[in-house]
Amino acid sequence: MRLLLISNSTNPGEAYLDYPKPEIKNFLGDKKVTGLFFPYAGVTFSYEEYAEKVKIRFNEIGHDIRSVHEFKDPIKAVRDAEAIIVGGGNTFHLLKMIRDHGLIKPVREKVLSGTPYIGWSAGSNMACPTIKTTNDMPIVEPDSFNAFHLVDFQINPHYIDKNPDGHAGETREDRINEFLAANRDIKVIGLREGCIFRVEDRQMKLIGTKSARVFEYGKSPVEMTDENDFSAFI
Amino acid sequence: MRLLLISNSTNPGEAYLDYPKPEIKNFLGDKKVTGLFFPYAGVTFSYEEYAEKVKIRFNEIGHDIRSVHEFKDPIKAVRDAEAIIVGGGNTFHLLKMIRDHGLIKPVREKVLSGTPYIGWSAGSNMACPTIKTTNDMPIVEPDSFNAFHLVDFQINPHYIDKNPDGHAGETREDRINEFLAANRDIKVIGLREGCIFRVEDRQMKLIGTKSARVFEYGKSPVEMTDENDFSAFI
Repeated sequence: MRLLLISNSTNPGEAYLDYPKPEIKNFLGDKKVTGLFFPYAGVTFSYEEYAEKVKIRFNEIGHDIRSVHEFKDPIKAVRDAEAIIVGGGNTFHLLKMIRDHGLIKPVREKVLSGTPYIGWSAGSNMACPTIKTTNDMPIVEPDSFNAFHLVDFQINPHYIDKNPDGHAGETREDRINEFLAANRDIKVIGLREGCIFRVEDRQMKLIGTKSARVFEYGKSPVEMTDENDFSAFI
Repeated sequence: MRLLLISNSTNPGEAYLDYPKPEIKNFLGDKKVTGLFFPYAGVTFSYEEYAEKVKIRFNEIGHDIRSVHEFKDPIKAVRDAEAIIVGGGNTFHLLKMIRDHGLIKPVREKVLSGTPYIGWSAGSNMACPTIKTTNDMPIVEPDSFNAFHLVDFQINPHYIDKNPDGHAGETREDRINEFLAANRDIKVIGLREGCIFRVEDRQMKLIGTKSARVFEYGKSPVEMTDENDFSAFI
């Protein structure tokens, strides 16, 4: 299994997909790959616009995409795909569309059989058992929270340590502790912005200069860096 | 119909329910009221602890609560209640427990017939048609996002204008714009911390020194203050 799970598309002040671009190039390799892109997390712009924006960035590194919304038979498109690329946006909208099109099982089987998977933000959450650690607003209602379940832990993308000063709402850590209280058997990793997990076979490593924060029920959170081995989490 | 919809229980540096306490006292009146308290949004502490904490604050203003989790027949407890009090915490957990106990319709009927309703944070969201404008993590899966539907608009509690510096995740306004794109017919009001909506019959007013931010699909957001009339939103 080969996964590239990216916390966020874009760091503040940078161009779209700028920091992950070299990692995507490295992950997909030298031979041109045409990935199947899932634009379903986009809500305030069209799927066409979203696909075009991503296509430009992939073309810059010698690869290409086609968007799943262009296919009459999306299940066949998944089966034929050279890579699965799942973009960020609203996680509930993404999951609802994927489930409504019956694509959970086809994508899961495809990726478990070796096809590379790249996701960012909502697209990284989709690789987890469920979307229960998303930060997004539940603007639409999927028929289930179950996602692709390619890994056995939950990612919290865009992980952030503090609230803005003077704000009393729950911190991200508070929210993850609530998740753990209700889901005691599953671990959560807070993936800070600018960071990526790369999974290859049974190995997982962190790419990025920030540490990741690992949460487990009944234990104190632990910081792990790119010098640690994350393979036990898969 | 009488509602007191509070953005957040506690401002930074203050005691629990400190700022809303005088408004709760004023809303419930001089005669002692024993409200039925819903502790179901609490996840990382027990319902007993939650109810005790709220009871102490209500006792300080001459009122009392009993917690719905103590009753063998919660539907009867709702029918007999002198007030409905819904505390904050995790909105998904709150909604799931209320729906699992079959309490949506009993509470709605009870409040529409004139029984006072007080909610804070998740408890304010529950007064809306759905919980689709919550900020909370979907740590558990309710069988539907439909809530008490006491008002016809959506509240976003703990409304906040900006992300912390250097964080690239969606702002609250981005998220609400995604909600509007997917739900074009319903308005959203961002209720900043320290602010309260008081609804009485067909009148709604804002209590608090901050303005509320009103979102409607296809229009620019509008700031409204305690000098404006919000009654058209109910």
